[in-house]
Amino acid sequence: MKDVLDDFCVTEAPYWRETGDEVALFTAAWDARIPVMLKGPTGCGKTRFVEHMAWRLGRPLVTVACNEDMTASDLIGRYLLDADGTRWQDGPLTFAARHGAICYLDEVVEARQDTTVAIHPLTDDRRVLPLEKTGELLRAHPDFLMVISYNPGYQSLMKDLKQSTKQRFGAMDFTWPGPEVEIEIVAHESGVDADTARKLVEIGARSRNLKGHGLDEGVSTRMLIHAGRLIRGGIAPRAACSMALVHSITDDPDMRDALDAAVATWF
Amino acid sequence: MKDVLDDFCVTEAPYWRETGDEVALFTAAWDARIPVMLKGPTGCGKTRFVEHMAWRLGRPLVTVACNEDMTASDLIGRYLLDADGTRWQDGPLTFAARHGAICYLDEVVEARQDTTVAIHPLTDDRRVLPLEKTGELLRAHPDFLMVISYNPGYQSLMKDLKQSTKQRFGAMDFTWPGPEVEIEIVAHESGVDADTARKLVEIGARSRNLKGHGLDEGVSTRMLIHAGRLIRGGIAPRAACSMALVHSITDDPDMRDALDAAVATWF
Amino acid sequence: MKDVLDDFCVTEAPYWRETGDEVALFTAAWDARIPVMLKGPTGCGKTRFVEHMAWRLGRPLVTVACNEDMTASDLIGRYLLDADGTRWQDGPLTFAARHGAICYLDEVVEARQDTTVAIHPLTDDRRVLPLEKTGELLRAHPDFLMVISYNPGYQSLMKDLKQSTKQRFGAMDFTWPGPEVEIEIVAHESGVDADTARKLVEIGARSRNLKGHGLDEGVSTRMLIHAGRLIRGGIAPRAACSMALVHSITDDPDMRDALDAAVATWF
Amino acid sequence: MKDVLDDFCVTEAPYWRETGDEVALFTAAWDARIPVMLKGPTGCGKTRFVEHMAWRLGRPLVTVACNEDMTASDLIGRYLLDADGTRWQDGPLTFAARHGAICYLDEVVEARQDTTVAIHPLTDDRRVLPLEKTGELLRAHPDFLMVISYNPGYQSLMKDLKQSTKQRFGAMDFTWPGPEVEIEIVAHESGVDADTARKLVEIGARSRNLKGHGLDEGVSTRMLIHAGRLIRGGIAPRAACSMALVHSITDDPDMRDALDAAVATWF
Amino acid sequence: MKDVLDDFCVTEAPYWRETGDEVALFTAAWDARIPVMLKGPTGCGKTRFVEHMAWRLGRPLVTVACNEDMTASDLIGRYLLDADGTRWQDGPLTFAARHGAICYLDEVVEARQDTTVAIHPLTDDRRVLPLEKTGELLRAHPDFLMVISYNPGYQSLMKDLKQSTKQRFGAMDFTWPGPEVEIEIVAHESGVDADTARKLVEIGARSRNLKGHGLDEGVSTRMLIHAGRLIRGGIAPRAACSMALVHSITDDPDMRDALDAAVATWF
Amino acid sequence: MKDVLDDFCVTEAPYWRETGDEVALFTAAWDARIPVMLKGPTGCGKTRFVEHMAWRLGRPLVTVACNEDMTASDLIGRYLLDADGTRWQDGPLTFAARHGAICYLDEVVEARQDTTVAIHPLTDDRRVLPLEKTGELLRAHPDFLMVISYNPGYQSLMKDLKQSTKQRFGAMDFTWPGPEVEIEIVAHESGVDADTARKLVEIGARSRNLKGHGLDEGVSTRMLIHAGRLIRGGIAPRAACSMALVHSITDDPDMRDALDAAVATWF
Repeated sequence: MKDVLDDFCVTEAPYWRETGDEVALFTAAWDARIPVMLKGPTGCGKTRFVEHMAWRLGRPLVTVACNEDMTASDLIGRYLLDADGTRWQDGPLTFAARHGAICYLDEVVEARQDTTVAIHPLTDDRRVLPLEKTGELLRAHPDFLMVISYNPGYQSLMKDLKQSTKQRFGAMDFTWPGPEVEIEIVAHESGVDADTARKLVEIGARSRNLKGHGLDEGVSTRMLIHAGRLIRGGIAPRAACSMALVHSITDDPDMRDALDAAVATWF
Repeated sequence: MKDVLDDFCVTEAPYWRETGDEVALFTAAWDARIPVMLKGPTGCGKTRFVEHMAWRLGRPLVTVACNEDMTASDLIGRYLLDADGTRWQDGPLTFAARHGAICYLDEVVEARQDTTVAIHPLTDDRRVLPLEKTGELLRAHPDFLMVISYNPGYQSLMKDLKQSTKQRFGAMDFTWPGPEVEIEIVAHESGVDADTARKLVEIGARSRNLKGHGLDEGVSTRMLIHAGRLIRGGIAPRAACSMALVHSITDDPDMRDALDAAVATWF
Repeated sequence: MKDVLDDFCVTEAPYWRETGDEVALFTAAWDARIPVMLKGPTGCGKTRFVEHMAWRLGRPLVTVACNEDMTASDLIGRYLLDADGTRWQDGPLTFAARHGAICYLDEVVEARQDTTVAIHPLTDDRRVLPLEKTGELLRAHPDFLMVISYNPGYQSLMKDLKQSTKQRFGAMDFTWPGPEVEIEIVAHESGVDADTARKLVEIGARSRNLKGHGLDEGVSTRMLIHAGRLIRGGIAPRAACSMALVHSITDDPDMRDALDAAVATWF
Repeated sequence: MKDVLDDFCVTEAPYWRETGDEVALFTAAWDARIPVMLKGPTGCGKTRFVEHMAWRLGRPLVTVACNEDMTASDLIGRYLLDADGTRWQDGPLTFAARHGAICYLDEVVEARQDTTVAIHPLTDDRRVLPLEKTGELLRAHPDFLMVISYNPGYQSLMKDLKQSTKQRFGAMDFTWPGPEVEIEIVAHESGVDADTARKLVEIGARSRNLKGHGLDEGVSTRMLIHAGRLIRGGIAPRAACSMALVHSITDDPDMRDALDAAVATWF
Repeated sequence: MKDVLDDFCVTEAPYWRETGDEVALFTAAWDARIPVMLKGPTGCGKTRFVEHMAWRLGRPLVTVACNEDMTASDLIGRYLLDADGTRWQDGPLTFAARHGAICYLDEVVEARQDTTVAIHPLTDDRRVLPLEKTGELLRAHPDFLMVISYNPGYQSLMKDLKQSTKQRFGAMDFTWPGPEVEIEIVAHESGVDADTARKLVEIGARSRNLKGHGLDEGVSTRMLIHAGRLIRGGIAPRAACSMALVHSITDDPDMRDALDAAVATWF
Repeated sequence: MKDVLDDFCVTEAPYWRETGDEVALFTAAWDARIPVMLKGPTGCGKTRFVEHMAWRLGRPLVTVACNEDMTASDLIGRYLLDADGTRWQDGPLTFAARHGAICYLDEVVEARQDTTVAIHPLTDDRRVLPLEKTGELLRAHPDFLMVISYNPGYQSLMKDLKQSTKQRFGAMDFTWPGPEVEIEIVAHESGVDADTARKLVEIGARSRNLKGHGLDEGVSTRMLIHAGRLIRGGIAPRAACSMALVHSITDDPDMRDALDAAVATWF
């Protein structure tokens, strides 16, 4: 069993700057095997957090980037043809349930609402997965846990989780870190000094105030780290911010002016 | 025949707290082989009840979580390729009809309206299933029974059962248990004491009053059990309720305030 | 040829209570090999009638429950892979045309309007079926007859038979049997005494008056039989009617009250 | 080559009652290999005419009932798997073009507008069919002719032939035969005497006046023949007309009354 | 290499009556390997012209009639199964690019807008075609040229070429030939004398004035040739025009009257 | 490893006329392995730039022309059948990630929004690609870099990149070169003298002023080069401009007049 899981073990501790009781809550949910839903805007660290928790709990992590074309077979598995006929290949959900990994469905709201029904029997007390194509009723490994993420800002009438899905999960809200924590993260991840990191975080804060006033989303921590890395690579700060923060987030000339002004205030 | 059914036998009695004549009605329908439709909101115990009845009647249970992508082949079966050519693989409906299991189609309204037509010949006096791909006309095992569930609150113009489907079933309505019963269930399932269970049940009752006033659904019994388990795991009651009840059910700030207030009243 | 048809022979006379000249008309259509269309509400006995006629005429019966996903291949046949390459498998329509069965397409209006085009060459004087995938032009067996059913109440702008399909068929209208006949049927099929059957039939008649005033369809004869069987199984009449008649037909509280009142009048 | 065409030869002269210069026009188009489009309402004899002409010209006839699901592969052909790998199977269009049959696409307007593009290279001076899947460029047999039918009354904005398709064809209009001719046809095909045939034809004429005033189409000659056959089979004329003419054409009570009145005038 | 191209060589000079500098322009584009777009109404000779140029330049011609169902695989190729496993089969685009043919996509606007993206790398300076399924990056043969046609009158909001496609092509406009040239063409192609040809061309000119006033398109040169051929085959001119020009182009009674009047003026 | 990449190496320096700090910015992003998004109108040189940078950085380049029908499997890979069973075939994204190429997704906005989700795990710090069908978690080669292009002018409500995709990239804006640079490019690429190149560039500038006033896009540099090449091939300048610039960009008579006037001003 060791071999198949090796690929999915998180061997180095992913950097995580704790800002509340998120580690304790996730650990309690894990202990009670309550499935967990991570909510929050894009780029605020949900994926990093689940990697961190997998490392901390010593469990392998199977991540699936959900998309609209994903069928139940993509999650559950399919028969492959081979020299001796067909061979069953577990999909990532089945693999995780069988071997006791944490299964993380990233941006689950992208999946077809009805495909997510496939996870229902694994997320209530039954903890089973009917493999209809093989006729097997898989009972989940005791260490299996389902984790999903979604960004409430994106949900629309067409794309939302069903109540019967939502209520199977304990939910944790994520948001941007406070400024001091974000400075620490940007400096740590990009290698710039604390002063440069502080300026970048200030620019980020400005951009987030523009959310809903012409920007769909503010600048994420990840983008600030990109800007920091370009600066570390010798690019002038204004050009680095232009590339990493402004041009990637909007094509609207007014918004670009507003963001450029914020950049010019600090650099 | 023993072997293939083993996976589907319910060997331990699923906990069921009877609240009316539901056991007698289901048993009479079973005796007359009248197909049964279980109606009620999500998380109120329909799936648990059918598991309980399967155990009580000593019949194996084949459960299918219905979804929009489910084709008739997913229910009925398909040919698989194998070293010696193709081999027919019964789908769960065919399997249940052939071997005399209870076949439970969960959230049947999710299935394409016309896919459900496939169950018609099994749910009238013919009790047959034409396997068009093999040319077989399968006569159902005498012990076969079809059970379906659906949540009337979800039905829409696009998704409802056809009259010609509905009228094949005897229908049983499920709803939330009364407070004393629900306290008993929450305490039994989560391990908290009766006092904590009572507080959780009070919070649940408040949330159910908000249904239609900003909430699509109230807090289910399952969510109360989640909160109880987090409390048992050492999480402070307010944080446990926040994770298990509030954040998972709504992203609306006003609704969150209303629910948080209900939590604060009791903890 | 005997073997392949055995499954499809109707060996026991299906109960049929004649109410008009339907047997003579169907027999004349059969003699002239005029395809027959059975029209009427769900549960009024169309399927039972065609089974009865198949038995009476001594012809095997191939029934297909039509649905929107049904492709022409599902009706006509396909190649299957097998140890020696591909093998052609007749679909139910081809099977019936080749061997001289009555082919009954139930709820044909559910099929894609254009899939029904596939039956055109079998339902005019040509009586052929081009099997495009094998290159065969199958001439129908002299005993082959096409029968279709549909419920005029369900037809919509999107789902109706094309004129060029309709005019290939002689049409027979079905409706609810008169009260004396229905009492006889309910008593015969459920085993209750004539008095109970009469009460059930009265309730059914009330419900049919509500059609179009809040109910999509009235209670069918089949549902009255269900209620009778539950009563025979020891369930109190009101509970039996609630399960078999009221809860399965509507979720509307006013309609439920109206139906419950009708039940209370008689039981 | 004889063998493959045998199935498609029209060996008995199909009955055709000439009413104009249709035979001369079709023959001239055939001589000049100008593709032919037959227009007219459903059931007026377009299919019968093309069968008659195939017999008269001594050419095999390959008929395809077009439908919306028909892909180019259904017309052109596909690879089939077989013990020695894949084997190419000509579709009906390729078969007809290769062996010199008349290829008749019935109700071509049902086919996807863009699928019909596949016939373009066969219907201009090139007279070729590129078989993209085999890499073959098939040059049509000198005796190949393309014939299509369509019912102008059905064409809609969504479903009409493209101009670039239409202009490849010479067009022939078909309509109902005049009364004397239709009497002759009904008597000939159903076996009733001339007096009964005349009454049926009168009823048909009445119904055609209702077209556009509540009926989508009038009663076709084929339906009059059905009525005649039922009468020949011993059914009373009114019941025969009810089954063959009235109930199959409309469910509207007013229209049924109007048609019943027409029937009662004559029988 | 000779063999595979043989089918696609244009061995007889296709008749082309030059009316401007179209031959010089196409030749210059060919010399510079600038892809060519032929624009103009249906039936005005675009396909004939590209055949003529292929013959004149001595290059094989691969023609693809585009349609909405055409996938990138239909253009590029696919794996076929065969006794020894899978075998790659070039699609027509790949075939032409590999062997140096002119590839003509007829009515390209019918293809899915995004399928046409597949031709982009072949129509800029890269002149490559990535065969993603084989992992090959095919560099086009030096003699390869892409030619597309489309009819501007058909383009709609849903179906138009993208700017990024259009600007890869040099464009040539085609329209109806002038009367003297068209008379010459009609006489040459149908075999009628110059006087009859002149009358047909006059009728064609009248019809083209009706474009936009009840006709979607005027009568094309091809249709005039059809009429001529029917006349040559012994059909009376009015009947020939009715079949070849009037009935094929419109079902509108007023338009038919107008066209019939034009015919009656000349014949 | 050498062999598989050979096809994708850019062996000759693609001509690139630097106009700003684009080379330095791309190089810094490459050094920090920040994914790059190239924005700008069609035909302004984005594809050429990425080829130039691949050559400059000495990395192989895998280009994918995105389209709406592209599935995740087209990017990631699939199983192919072969004499010994199935064999996994890397898609272009997997190939590039495995072997350390630059992977360039051209016109990424054409891809289904949710297909692009597949690139997420490769474009954050994880730099992994889960191959769900093989069960492999591919860690990207250290030299792998993702580059995408898109044309902001084309983005619509239906087709735009998600915020969670955009923020993974540093963005570089491209636009038309200034006149002196464009003259140099047109002369270099088409072989015309500087004076002719200047006239063409003036015409191009005029056309770009018409963008939004009747033209969707102005004339691109590539089109000017086409005109130059036709002139070099002996075509008169006005005819060359008509073919390469005017007729390919618009069918609107007024726009054609405006463009023709611009051409006539200079030639």
